[in-house]
Amino acid sequence: MLYIIGLGLADERDISVKGLEIVRKAERVYLEAYTAVLLVEKDALEAYYGRSIIIADREKVESQSDEILAEAHEKDVAFLVVGDPFSATTHTDLALRCRQHEPPIPTRTLPNASILTAVGATGLSLYNFGQTVSMVFFTESWKPDSFYDRIAENVSLGLHTLVLLDIKVKEPNLQALARGKIVYEPPRFMSVAQCASQMIEIEETRKSDVCGKEKLAIGVARLGSEGEQIVAGTLEELTEADLGKPLHSLVLCGNKMHEMECEYAREFAVDKEKFDRIWKQNYAARS
Amino acid sequence: MLYIIGLGLADERDISVKGLEIVRKAERVYLEAYTAVLLVEKDALEAYYGRSIIIADREKVESQSDEILAEAHEKDVAFLVVGDPFSATTHTDLALRCRQHEPPIPTRTLPNASILTAVGATGLSLYNFGQTVSMVFFTESWKPDSFYDRIAENVSLGLHTLVLLDIKVKEPNLQALARGKIVYEPPRFMSVAQCASQMIEIEETRKSDVCGKEKLAIGVARLGSEGEQIVAGTLEELTEADLGKPLHSLVLCGNKMHEMECEYAREFAVDKEKFDRIWKQNYAARS
Repeated sequence: MLYIIGLGLADERDISVKGLEIVRKAERVYLEAYTAVLLVEKDALEAYYGRSIIIADREKVESQSDEILAEAHEKDVAFLVVGDPFSATTHTDLALRCRQHEPPIPTRTLPNASILTAVGATGLSLYNFGQTVSMVFFTESWKPDSFYDRIAENVSLGLHTLVLLDIKVKEPNLQALARGKIVYEPPRFMSVAQCASQMIEIEETRKSDVCGKEKLAIGVARLGSEGEQIVAGTLEELTEADLGKPLHSLVLCGNKMHEMECEYAREFAVDKEKFDRIWKQNYAARS
Repeated sequence: MLYIIGLGLADERDISVKGLEIVRKAERVYLEAYTAVLLVEKDALEAYYGRSIIIADREKVESQSDEILAEAHEKDVAFLVVGDPFSATTHTDLALRCRQHEPPIPTRTLPNASILTAVGATGLSLYNFGQTVSMVFFTESWKPDSFYDRIAENVSLGLHTLVLLDIKVKEPNLQALARGKIVYEPPRFMSVAQCASQMIEIEETRKSDVCGKEKLAIGVARLGSEGEQIVAGTLEELTEADLGKPLHSLVLCGNKMHEMECEYAREFAVDKEKFDRIWKQNYAARS
């Protein structure tokens, strides 16, 4: 059996009691470590779970899954995923390979907390969210803006948009690679401030009033942990916000934002008066 | 401190390790028992957690929250919620009351699995979902159809819609009430089949090609438990589907449904050939 086990969002004790029992008994334990990260290191998990953990990077999961699946038709293998197992399509892929394996490998999934619902901590109703989008790190020459079209669709319906921010772990240094050496860059995690800047940058070229400076948004960091942080304000204000350590996410508020949502979220505002004023001008009428 | 603790979806062992530690130490433990239910009874929770649990019905949470919040500014109170704490606005309400309490009551939320992401078990990508809607039990004279407008918005963008199904717990019997007696009806949980019927019924009056008989949909039951069940097919086929015990939910597939999503979901199809044919005709072109 392949158990795909969600770990939740913060640390080694966010696993479910059921998940922990499986991890402690499994033949091998893998940790998927490239679509999201916990706020603690692998050794904290190993100490608490009492198991040694094999890191599964993108290459191992996508190209060398035979190793992960070896003997899994008769032995129990635990594959740990930060957040909820279905938060990334890569895990559906893995389940599909189990189904097509000869002999087929039974799978079982243990759901857990995901940023997709933990974002309710902002006070925004989960019923008022449209599709979720991803934001990647822009470079000088590569500024993919397809997120803008998806957000525009949500905006047209007055819905909120959760923006998930890029993480880069185990990226090879290209200069070293050119010299035939594999050297990994330190991990990078996009901040709320950088995401807000990139959104404003694309608004300035696309100009469809989707994510300009005066739009209300909420930045979140380390949700579900004791040190979680939430900051609300205009996108322009958020370009200056420092929410500290990763992981960060951002919500762009839709203009159907209800009075009760506003009442809850304004407590997190950089500038409450400004937040109220903009909400009344541009949001209250639609809610 | 008021701890609002998600229990996850299936049974007493879906709570996080951290949540269990808090429950075992808290002064009082409440269980919100009207927006969702676990697949086990209260006594299973009490036995496993080693605590007696006070059931918090709608009246207690919405009108008598003073009892729940009593002394919570200096003692720890655990408020348990099936699924994720923010899955229903009623919990945001409670957190707001803590903030406005004199003296203010600190709160902490422990996220957990929610149907909103566990629905990824269908193979549908969580990125391709639009807004979530609710479906209530129709009566002869009351068939609220506002869900149709929300689904139509998702359909216009090619997005999937998660439909959450009505539950009725602790509803008074109206005949007894007229005689001055309070007698509660047995709990009722909407099935996938009934939801599919109601969707088709409204399509027949509204006629905007949103949720007619030939639309693809996926019914799910008891997600996250060992007995989880998933059935895919046309809405018409789902009106005949028996997914057994509660809780059920339904996903209406958007026509941007990707080939990989189709490949995964078709394994659950009542009639795979029909599923493939309809997908090719009406969905594949958009994906």
